[in-house]
Amino acid sequence: MNKNRLEAFSDGVLAIVITIMVLELRVPAEPSWHALLSVFPTFLSYLLSFVYVGIYWNNHHHMIHLADRVNGGILWANLHLLFWISLFPFSTRWMDESGFAEVPVLAYGFNLLCAAIAYFVLQQSLIRHQGRQGALAQAIGRDWKGKTSPLIYLAGLGLCVLHPLLGVAAYTVVALIWLVPDRRVEHFVIRAHQDRLE
Amino acid sequence: MNKNRLEAFSDGVLAIVITIMVLELRVPAEPSWHALLSVFPTFLSYLLSFVYVGIYWNNHHHMIHLADRVNGGILWANLHLLFWISLFPFSTRWMDESGFAEVPVLAYGFNLLCAAIAYFVLQQSLIRHQGRQGALAQAIGRDWKGKTSPLIYLAGLGLCVLHPLLGVAAYTVVALIWLVPDRRVEHFVIRAHQDRLE
Amino acid sequence: MNKNRLEAFSDGVLAIVITIMVLELRVPAEPSWHALLSVFPTFLSYLLSFVYVGIYWNNHHHMIHLADRVNGGILWANLHLLFWISLFPFSTRWMDESGFAEVPVLAYGFNLLCAAIAYFVLQQSLIRHQGRQGALAQAIGRDWKGKTSPLIYLAGLGLCVLHPLLGVAAYTVVALIWLVPDRRVEHFVIRAHQDRLE
Amino acid sequence: MNKNRLEAFSDGVLAIVITIMVLELRVPAEPSWHALLSVFPTFLSYLLSFVYVGIYWNNHHHMIHLADRVNGGILWANLHLLFWISLFPFSTRWMDESGFAEVPVLAYGFNLLCAAIAYFVLQQSLIRHQGRQGALAQAIGRDWKGKTSPLIYLAGLGLCVLHPLLGVAAYTVVALIWLVPDRRVEHFVIRAHQDRLE
Repeated sequence: MNKNRLEAFSDGVLAIVITIMVLELRVPAEPSWHALLSVFPTFLSYLLSFVYVGIYWNNHHHMIHLADRVNGGILWANLHLLFWISLFPFSTRWMDESGFAEVPVLAYGFNLLCAAIAYFVLQQSLIRHQGRQGALAQAIGRDWKGKTSPLIYLAGLGLCVLHPLLGVAAYTVVALIWLVPDRRVEHFVIRAHQDRLE
Repeated sequence: MNKNRLEAFSDGVLAIVITIMVLELRVPAEPSWHALLSVFPTFLSYLLSFVYVGIYWNNHHHMIHLADRVNGGILWANLHLLFWISLFPFSTRWMDESGFAEVPVLAYGFNLLCAAIAYFVLQQSLIRHQGRQGALAQAIGRDWKGKTSPLIYLAGLGLCVLHPLLGVAAYTVVALIWLVPDRRVEHFVIRAHQDRLE
Repeated sequence: MNKNRLEAFSDGVLAIVITIMVLELRVPAEPSWHALLSVFPTFLSYLLSFVYVGIYWNNHHHMIHLADRVNGGILWANLHLLFWISLFPFSTRWMDESGFAEVPVLAYGFNLLCAAIAYFVLQQSLIRHQGRQGALAQAIGRDWKGKTSPLIYLAGLGLCVLHPLLGVAAYTVVALIWLVPDRRVEHFVIRAHQDRLE
Repeated sequence: MNKNRLEAFSDGVLAIVITIMVLELRVPAEPSWHALLSVFPTFLSYLLSFVYVGIYWNNHHHMIHLADRVNGGILWANLHLLFWISLFPFSTRWMDESGFAEVPVLAYGFNLLCAAIAYFVLQQSLIRHQGRQGALAQAIGRDWKGKTSPLIYLAGLGLCVLHPLLGVAAYTVVALIWLVPDRRVEHFVIRAHQDRLE
């Protein structure tokens, strides 16, 4: 079973998720700067979720690139990841509409945590299928980002009890960790590709 | 006529159907756990429909992979299947909003049944086009899942008269039957692919 | 400039148009057969528009398959076609909400007519680019369907003045003309493809 | 890292953005020509945004076609562009709903300006990655359109203070500049492609 359709379907779902969130953005009630400012928090949470989906797309792109082929279990592990990501618009919207109240911020963090776990499960399925000596296992290495993120999410969930915005800050930290390019992995990807061509 | 665009178009439609259902999820009215709990049935029916679309995508992926090429009739059989699947968000929403009342649960089951029949028709068109000795006909074999599912749907429609949730239970059973991987088919797919490469 | 991304983009737009129309379907107000029946006209107009988009996708698929490559003018002719098709959900919705009143039915027919003209313009651009001796010009031949459809649409617009449903009937006739497979073209497509492989 | 998924994902996002804008089109309140006329400004702003997304898709298509491969920075520069384009439905809607008031027209222009800058940044990233002697750097040449557009946008933002519609006129001028095909670039693209085949 080859991986083209898995890529195409995932691209489709991620493209839709990243785009429909903008449908949730309510237009300011009046044509004034003041009204625009009042939707600014909504705009920021849209930006955060956009960046999150972008990170997932980016990492998914790299990960599947290094995989050889897929089986039924991997297809479902991928759908499981897409399920949690598809809930981002819902949890983002609730967080917004509540004005960043505690419970919705916790729910948003829980959604992020579930997506991170689903990503890890997908990654492990791919590595198991390809073997420990495969390109993916070596590229990922010790995977400090993948292992640290859930811990920061958990810390964020805890911090919500003190103040919801502390939770949001923790979620933002995870996004920043992933945004900073990981030169090591990227070089590995390039090398793996060159080896394949030789 | 090659099958690439049929795959791309189907992936697009299925990706959209699976994603727009989340737009239907109404955000809880208050920022409380209690309010989140009250949307939980909605969440479950979203999950059920997500799993259904996932199953169709998965099986479609396998089926088209084994097909060689397509003709006009197959394109329309495929659109017919996509039509019924595209109604899932509509029938899921009605079922939710009614609080799982009898008529909407029957309508949802009827929608599932129509999709199952459309899938069967598409499968038969592909087999007719490829021939009884083709990879698809052999991979499918006696197709007990494809033949049992409509019967369980019909049973579910009957059970709705007793209690709508019995109907929902029957629909869930069909999803579970398909979720459990069918090793036999999968191995056949892998072998067929390897034969082609040799 | 190759045609892959034109196909991918068109598939994306058509897949979205065909799917978002279902978001317009209002759920019946009550959980009863009676309420379901009351949305039946809406359902039928959804079906008609679904079939129309399906026909466009089908024909687009065939036409681009026979084209060799594309230029900037063709990309815009294609976007022009997609523009009119992207208005189908809007004009379908208006027709529905008005209960098939005269003006919205005229607007729907006008939309169909514009899409048909845009399709013709795209077809001519492709033929001009490929040459009169190209596979596309020969496959299309005298193109009686393409030339008859606008006339039937015009007749439908006239019939709306008598009764809007006569207009809808005329539009349905065009859909049926295209639904019936045109064996001649299809055989030509298959032969052209085989020639290319030899 | 190859560029196929970047193309597929961008096509997906652009296809969705261009299509969901039609969901914003409110159906006329009454089934009359008068009511249809009253939504005509909305229709025109939909057309303008459709053309803008079409221009971006067209140019993106050309630009990526000339690029060889991509890296992590390019993926993010692309997501950055898609972010601003994904806000088009939002800013178009606000401009419409306000009846082309000053602040929303300024916000729309600002959105167009940000997208133009993001496009420029993406273009520079691609050129840096490919080298000054690459096909892309040569095809773009002095890039008078890319350099003039932001200036016209800025002029449009200034003109809004006099009258919002003057701003809209300026934005329309930019669209027209890009709509007129640039034969020089197109010929270059064709030649570059032919060289590659030889």
